[in-house]
Amino acid sequence: MASNRFFDRADPIAFAGTDSRDPLAFRFYDKDREVMGRRMEDQLRFAVCYWHSFTWPGGDPFGGETFNRPWMHGSDALALARDKADVAFDMFRLLDVPFFTFHDVDVAPEGASLKESNDNLKAITDIFAKKMETEKVRLLWGTANLFSNRRYMAGAATNPDPDVFTYAVGQVKAALDATHALNGANYVCWGGREGYETLLNTDMGRELDQLGRFLSMLVDYKHKIGFEGPILIEPKPKEPTKHQYDFDAATVFGFLQKYDLVADVKLNLEQNHAILAGHSFEHEVKTAYAAGLFGSLDINRGDDLLGWDTDQFAMNVGEMALVFHEMLRHGGFTTGGLNFDAKIRRQSIDPDDLLIAHVASMDACARGLLAAEAMLKDEALTGPLNARYAGWDQPEAKAILAGERTLEQVAERALGLDPQPRSGRQEYLEGVVNRYV
Amino acid sequence: MASNRFFDRADPIAFAGTDSRDPLAFRFYDKDREVMGRRMEDQLRFAVCYWHSFTWPGGDPFGGETFNRPWMHGSDALALARDKADVAFDMFRLLDVPFFTFHDVDVAPEGASLKESNDNLKAITDIFAKKMETEKVRLLWGTANLFSNRRYMAGAATNPDPDVFTYAVGQVKAALDATHALNGANYVCWGGREGYETLLNTDMGRELDQLGRFLSMLVDYKHKIGFEGPILIEPKPKEPTKHQYDFDAATVFGFLQKYDLVADVKLNLEQNHAILAGHSFEHEVKTAYAAGLFGSLDINRGDDLLGWDTDQFAMNVGEMALVFHEMLRHGGFTTGGLNFDAKIRRQSIDPDDLLIAHVASMDACARGLLAAEAMLKDEALTGPLNARYAGWDQPEAKAILAGERTLEQVAERALGLDPQPRSGRQEYLEGVVNRYV
Amino acid sequence: MASNRFFDRADPIAFAGTDSRDPLAFRFYDKDREVMGRRMEDQLRFAVCYWHSFTWPGGDPFGGETFNRPWMHGSDALALARDKADVAFDMFRLLDVPFFTFHDVDVAPEGASLKESNDNLKAITDIFAKKMETEKVRLLWGTANLFSNRRYMAGAATNPDPDVFTYAVGQVKAALDATHALNGANYVCWGGREGYETLLNTDMGRELDQLGRFLSMLVDYKHKIGFEGPILIEPKPKEPTKHQYDFDAATVFGFLQKYDLVADVKLNLEQNHAILAGHSFEHEVKTAYAAGLFGSLDINRGDDLLGWDTDQFAMNVGEMALVFHEMLRHGGFTTGGLNFDAKIRRQSIDPDDLLIAHVASMDACARGLLAAEAMLKDEALTGPLNARYAGWDQPEAKAILAGERTLEQVAERALGLDPQPRSGRQEYLEGVVNRYV
Amino acid sequence: MASNRFFDRADPIAFAGTDSRDPLAFRFYDKDREVMGRRMEDQLRFAVCYWHSFTWPGGDPFGGETFNRPWMHGSDALALARDKADVAFDMFRLLDVPFFTFHDVDVAPEGASLKESNDNLKAITDIFAKKMETEKVRLLWGTANLFSNRRYMAGAATNPDPDVFTYAVGQVKAALDATHALNGANYVCWGGREGYETLLNTDMGRELDQLGRFLSMLVDYKHKIGFEGPILIEPKPKEPTKHQYDFDAATVFGFLQKYDLVADVKLNLEQNHAILAGHSFEHEVKTAYAAGLFGSLDINRGDDLLGWDTDQFAMNVGEMALVFHEMLRHGGFTTGGLNFDAKIRRQSIDPDDLLIAHVASMDACARGLLAAEAMLKDEALTGPLNARYAGWDQPEAKAILAGERTLEQVAERALGLDPQPRSGRQEYLEGVVNRYV
Repeated sequence: MASNRFFDRADPIAFAGTDSRDPLAFRFYDKDREVMGRRMEDQLRFAVCYWHSFTWPGGDPFGGETFNRPWMHGSDALALARDKADVAFDMFRLLDVPFFTFHDVDVAPEGASLKESNDNLKAITDIFAKKMETEKVRLLWGTANLFSNRRYMAGAATNPDPDVFTYAVGQVKAALDATHALNGANYVCWGGREGYETLLNTDMGRELDQLGRFLSMLVDYKHKIGFEGPILIEPKPKEPTKHQYDFDAATVFGFLQKYDLVADVKLNLEQNHAILAGHSFEHEVKTAYAAGLFGSLDINRGDDLLGWDTDQFAMNVGEMALVFHEMLRHGGFTTGGLNFDAKIRRQSIDPDDLLIAHVASMDACARGLLAAEAMLKDEALTGPLNARYAGWDQPEAKAILAGERTLEQVAERALGLDPQPRSGRQEYLEGVVNRYV
Repeated sequence: MASNRFFDRADPIAFAGTDSRDPLAFRFYDKDREVMGRRMEDQLRFAVCYWHSFTWPGGDPFGGETFNRPWMHGSDALALARDKADVAFDMFRLLDVPFFTFHDVDVAPEGASLKESNDNLKAITDIFAKKMETEKVRLLWGTANLFSNRRYMAGAATNPDPDVFTYAVGQVKAALDATHALNGANYVCWGGREGYETLLNTDMGRELDQLGRFLSMLVDYKHKIGFEGPILIEPKPKEPTKHQYDFDAATVFGFLQKYDLVADVKLNLEQNHAILAGHSFEHEVKTAYAAGLFGSLDINRGDDLLGWDTDQFAMNVGEMALVFHEMLRHGGFTTGGLNFDAKIRRQSIDPDDLLIAHVASMDACARGLLAAEAMLKDEALTGPLNARYAGWDQPEAKAILAGERTLEQVAERALGLDPQPRSGRQEYLEGVVNRYV
Repeated sequence: MASNRFFDRADPIAFAGTDSRDPLAFRFYDKDREVMGRRMEDQLRFAVCYWHSFTWPGGDPFGGETFNRPWMHGSDALALARDKADVAFDMFRLLDVPFFTFHDVDVAPEGASLKESNDNLKAITDIFAKKMETEKVRLLWGTANLFSNRRYMAGAATNPDPDVFTYAVGQVKAALDATHALNGANYVCWGGREGYETLLNTDMGRELDQLGRFLSMLVDYKHKIGFEGPILIEPKPKEPTKHQYDFDAATVFGFLQKYDLVADVKLNLEQNHAILAGHSFEHEVKTAYAAGLFGSLDINRGDDLLGWDTDQFAMNVGEMALVFHEMLRHGGFTTGGLNFDAKIRRQSIDPDDLLIAHVASMDACARGLLAAEAMLKDEALTGPLNARYAGWDQPEAKAILAGERTLEQVAERALGLDPQPRSGRQEYLEGVVNRYV
Repeated sequence: MASNRFFDRADPIAFAGTDSRDPLAFRFYDKDREVMGRRMEDQLRFAVCYWHSFTWPGGDPFGGETFNRPWMHGSDALALARDKADVAFDMFRLLDVPFFTFHDVDVAPEGASLKESNDNLKAITDIFAKKMETEKVRLLWGTANLFSNRRYMAGAATNPDPDVFTYAVGQVKAALDATHALNGANYVCWGGREGYETLLNTDMGRELDQLGRFLSMLVDYKHKIGFEGPILIEPKPKEPTKHQYDFDAATVFGFLQKYDLVADVKLNLEQNHAILAGHSFEHEVKTAYAAGLFGSLDINRGDDLLGWDTDQFAMNVGEMALVFHEMLRHGGFTTGGLNFDAKIRRQSIDPDDLLIAHVASMDACARGLLAAEAMLKDEALTGPLNARYAGWDQPEAKAILAGERTLEQVAERALGLDPQPRSGRQEYLEGVVNRYV
């Protein structure tokens, strides 16, 4: 199969301005436009995700494949993997994105043994390396799928069987090696089944210790081979399990402190995972910054009224404007980027649907970024925020925070006070945001 | 008002055996029965809660008072508080519970100044002390209400105004002093409005630092005055705020580590708060034990299909059996107990409803405790659990966990493995639990 | 109290164009601008709601009053009600809205008897009538509060006690009479406690029959007095009760059919109630149109991550654009309008917060309306929709739908078919909406 | 494959009494014990479900097959289907259940054309008929899977393409014919994808008309062929779609009235579907009885803290006691039964897990039934219920309900009333239930 037969298009999608009605043109994503001192492309650092776009066949728990992609049907698994790679790199080029991401099993078939699986992975990532010599696209991160194979049905690092833990170590080493070989900017761990289905058969404390050990070994190895990017943990509260140990950013913060991993492990946050945990995306991002753990983002959206991971393409400009506002306040991404952990709906079966979805979402992100920049420059939100906390800049308040006052001293001073509440101005601020979005 | 005019009953409620149909007799709660080496009363350590039972008038967001308690209507606030205390201690006696709990503002009226409020608190708790000389009831914990007064509408410790922080310190000092004077076994902090309504006006990192400082001061003071019980944080994810910083046990673990408070602060967990955070009660308890933070329990239940804190009386024997099973495995309560943070429904307006609710729930707890004891003695759950993880007791597995193996060593060993999954036996274990409940 | 002392402003808020940064100026709401053949004011038909803006003191389940409005403190209840009316009508004028709405108990104090309550209501609504002679504002709807008083704690029409049903009839008659006297365009029933707290004490079938009878009597009376507007039921799934019988639009449709009320009763839909029932606002609106029951809208928004009614001011332009798109397709409001069943946050304690919230939300609605108009004119959504269902316009398909084919005939024709799926184009359509919002 | 090689057991599972600890013996399910005038087997009418137990391979959205059943791997699809039937009927015999249920595609492979699919179905159901001559098991209901094949990705009856509607008619006719041939007691329709993924591409009113027509044709055909059982609709609010039109019992009631189907169509209710819609199982059952639509039950349980259909085996005795209490009040099942729409967890990979799960759940149901019987006989719940509504048995109250009083007459009578609230006694009733469970 020649990749140019899958997408009916030769030229990369281009910026055409806000008046365009072409679903295959960018209206806001203008990669060279400067935003807060960087090119827009370098601020947003978009990555296309191999899994959802090229490996998922369109199934759900009540129905099978809908996409019928040509590279999913055939008997020569490695040949199909090469065909898939051709289509994938063609899409990277058409979308003109600077990054991609993958799981090991997305790109190469599992073999009859770990050795064979690792060889397959090497064979395909060698092809990637070759393609990357001439293409602009780089690797944002790689990862290992430690949850789909039935051997991992009770977890990988947290499995009750140490042989499964061991097997997972073998697989993750190969995935990190491949990521390193491709100059990946980060390495991601999503603990798909690191959790439990029922507490009746689970020793939580023991499993957390196993997970801590697993990550510590990975961190040591990363240093040894000179992989400079961070290990990123991707919090998710549940699904497929009833409970995942990496529930949300705050939970992972507690875990990383306990196992002394704060210096080497950061967070890869996702909108859909955030809302499944009961948080807004912005909340998770602010929590990560407060903990010093911000790393990268999976950009997608869930459905607020559904209780599972829908991984829809992000289209909500206002939500992203607030996330990017926080990010820009902290200087933007370092190693991270915006990974499209998003899948077209299973009814979107045309090849163009894949392109259209990415284009529409990239534009929504770009609009969010521009709104964030404007709010920041105008101090539209930061101005009122600083004013609200100004009292804490006074000497006595600073002394309290610095630990220079005892409870009794402060309590004594309280006796003379009758503090009056001040308006929180929420509706005013919501109106301000609406001015920019 | 003489307290004996409120409850139409003179004698304490007694154990009558499982055949009894009297809603004012215990069918399972037999205080002197030995359970795992302690009297049942000493295992369960029930506490009646002042707030829900004597201070809440039956209102909800769409309607006002339904209970019309005599001590809620009148002009002499301190006299009413004394009447309320009479009724409360009468109920403690009738229920024959070993403990009670209170917020400062539950028991004494707020004054026109902090000084006056503190004086009122002292006046009433002096009465408590007097009563406690002759009554069996002791104080499980005290706490300060830092959320109802409008001055705290934007938080107490996390308020943008340092004067509010200061005022809260003044109030909490008085509450801890009162708790100490009454030989309270613990002191509780529930961060009712330590959180946010909107991130648009909130500096999360700054507020967390304020909260850390507040608790550190409290811990220092506790040591200074020789208060030996722990400070207990009560996690809750939301309500009244959109987000509370003490979201759940895992979040508090991260917070306590960051501010170096792990040694002095433990957790007071509640069923209804657990499910609002997306967790089972058992999950929170196991998380607390894994983190070394288990302290005490607010025993109640929420409605799984509602999104707010209903604080209903706990009636689910099976749920509690699993919680107590975990607790008994760890030796049971030390300073903690089962506090009835539960309110009768606002339609349960008869005085007897108050007694009946406590009796029915105490019985449900007792049944849960007896089931837990039986499961433990039979190793009905612990047996299969230990068998499931037996592989980790092998030397190589132990060496991995002990940090004596590198990723490369383990990965090398993986090449020879093809681990096969084993049944998780969930339905078998659920059937086992049903045998005991 | 002179009303001009509450709001620090004399002149109505005016349209100032999109460049304005004044939070007390309209940027999009340009009342005389024509939208789909009507003035914008006549399309949106905004109403200010007495309850949230003038009667709610800022309390929540964990804290009391924050607003400290002058008309809420004093001993002469009728005088305070008159003061409140002055402020309310001043706000109607400042916001330049065409409508307002009220519950009986919002505007007049409850008396010691039903007779006295009815007299109080008459006294205040007579004042309203007088004010309305010179002011532009009209009454969108009136309603009776049958849920706050403790007599209604177990429901009004569905109460187990027929005397409570009777009392409710007495109250609702007075409220409809007052609404009729003020030329109200509709009369609303929100079944605040028409539901249950527990099924253990509830006879659901019997209670539904009571509710059907109550509404039938109301409809008969409406016809008798010549009240021409519809009775509107406001669906809500829960809160304050565990379950309300008017759960959502579809449930009410079943109820109205059973009790033969479809011709006279329509729906008043609310965004926050929709999401509490698990539906989008747009879903409820489309369901109502499909059932022929669309009446009016309570415009507000809930928090998707919270499980209770937050009644925040509507700010989500995209959500409203889709609702208005459906509404404009059906010709827009007849008797209904956009009632601000929205409350400023309890921290928004300044008088200006009240104005700012309304202005920001009116602007968001106006933007939504303009986007809806543009989408309709461009057939941006309706074009693809009609194309998708075009097959059903073919003769054989029409014959099936018309009931002219038997199952066997259709099954026979199926044997020759192998229908192929077509793309649902969801991402394309989401991108289209983003072009307009 | 000989079926006796799958289950390592020859004899049916028997009643062994409550002291038994054998997970493969019944402790409460004593089929010949009389309960409310029928044998327990005839009250509970258990059915094993083909789909979950024999056709689902253990996959979830994040992982594939775990069970590796022998009949799922091979090239001769019809031979595998026969092997599967052998195992299935062996399990029916071992569990000694009186009923089973199936979808067309569960039992027979889909062919290359509708004709071939129908022939396959006929071939297998002929085998069923043969087996049923000698086995006790009967067919509770059959159904057609109109959601898994990609042709149905946008719905079956509600598809935008009338050819898909037509194809679905062809399939459903064959399934009803097969059900009729096997003397099925009911025929079930679950509208798996009769709903929408996004309202942007959906014409709700049109699709509801299609669905109404589809069911009307089916009802006409049922009468024509003399199928005497009811058509059962199975409400579910969502999943796989964002919204299913058969959301819950109340929604279906509205739909059936509109399309005049109330006489011929009843409801098949499921616990997990109920809670996904925000209702308790008991609520759905009571709603169905109040609407005259009760038909049959899918007995399983969901996880209250998860937002998707987990279909776990029902183990909650208390929940089922209340459902059966309502059912027994109405005389118990007529054509319906308890279908195990429940799947063992994907980690429960041993053959015995299948048997153990059914046994544990049948026992839990039996306990629930016995508790319901005892409560009914003691009038433990019905007594207080009747007392609570006794006022409505008075002449004036009856006259109101009978439509013999006008609003004005009732309002006039209200003027003399001051009804006082009475306790709802919720905690008392909860304690009562705990006495029986």
